[in-house]
Amino acid sequence: MSDKKKVAVILSGCGVYDGSEIHEATLTLLALDMHGAKAVAAAPDIVQAKVVNHAIGKEMPGENRNVLIESARIARGDIRQVSELDVDELDAAILPGGFGAAINLSDFATAGADVRVERTVSDFLGRMHLAKKPIAALCIAPPILARVLKDAGVEGAKLTIGNDPSAAAGINAIGQEHVACPADSFVADQDNLIVSCPCYMLAEGIAELWKGIEATVVRLLEMV
Amino acid sequence: MSDKKKVAVILSGCGVYDGSEIHEATLTLLALDMHGAKAVAAAPDIVQAKVVNHAIGKEMPGENRNVLIESARIARGDIRQVSELDVDELDAAILPGGFGAAINLSDFATAGADVRVERTVSDFLGRMHLAKKPIAALCIAPPILARVLKDAGVEGAKLTIGNDPSAAAGINAIGQEHVACPADSFVADQDNLIVSCPCYMLAEGIAELWKGIEATVVRLLEMV
Repeated sequence: MSDKKKVAVILSGCGVYDGSEIHEATLTLLALDMHGAKAVAAAPDIVQAKVVNHAIGKEMPGENRNVLIESARIARGDIRQVSELDVDELDAAILPGGFGAAINLSDFATAGADVRVERTVSDFLGRMHLAKKPIAALCIAPPILARVLKDAGVEGAKLTIGNDPSAAAGINAIGQEHVACPADSFVADQDNLIVSCPCYMLAEGIAELWKGIEATVVRLLEMV
Repeated sequence: MSDKKKVAVILSGCGVYDGSEIHEATLTLLALDMHGAKAVAAAPDIVQAKVVNHAIGKEMPGENRNVLIESARIARGDIRQVSELDVDELDAAILPGGFGAAINLSDFATAGADVRVERTVSDFLGRMHLAKKPIAALCIAPPILARVLKDAGVEGAKLTIGNDPSAAAGINAIGQEHVACPADSFVADQDNLIVSCPCYMLAEGIAELWKGIEATVVRLLEMV
């Protein structure tokens, strides 16, 4: 048995407009490997809310794709269903961003503060929180964490999505506390064992993105 | 006008089994940005040779996807057709790997040493070579470069795909010279202005992959 820390990476598809943001997900895997942790990629086995042609930014009508199958592209085939994750075998979890976090893993894009989280993701994160295992959320994924913590009775947890007013208002309306943060840094809430980072909500390039993600992953691993 | 070096990143889809290897493509973008160069992502506007379900590693019958449209996922929408690239405006080019290089950008997977390169990619790389602009090829992409150089009358150019015997034999049979190389290093041929790196042909993890890609990109930029 390896004594590496095991970190679930919860994906939401493959592409910034309808799934996981590919750079955020890939650099999360890089930071975990570079800092001695083992990534355990997972996604829910559900149909994507939509499929977007990323070359022109428009929905592809009639196209259907599965979140688990498309997420497997980022994980090079090494992926499992979120419902199969064993909290006892994991040390932490991280949610990369991309619009998939707001339309597949949750309905934050349309429901805002009334956001509901996909059942298996909600169950898994709720159990991780109960087991006092740290969780990180990048970019537009923090509202998922805001809802899961609220459902667990936590209020006032500190989270960031950078400085976007409407997303920040959504987090505050759920009952948590949005904290403004630059792209190359993160917000850590040690009491609630959560870390968040604005990533491409603010980052102007992939090198800046990397600084924020590496710092976030290092902080997450420190919380284990 | 920016005085950044501009580097074309030629993509072949989005996923290791039917397109560009996502980690290789993303880390190429990271290395370029980190070392002060500007990436110009491009792909041919052609139908993918096949679509693979990456969760189970099997072809999805009846599924059709376009190389340009899927590549745009990696480029966050900022992509153009290879046929639209202007050699005069570019300083270098790089080809990430993934099976798309061997089935979409070329037919190396089935034709071996008789490999033919997709017309717009062949034209573009041929013009870059004539203009003495350096080109890098990662993972399974070097046979493309072997063919383009051969078509330009070059023989004995040094290239690596790591140490895979059949792919190495293919490169040698085209008339170039395969050189064995570990995953965290690269093979540079200064006379022919080419660099190549084994990447996931050999790398056992993404942190090791990053070492090879960063070193390759730094060497490519030195050749400009």
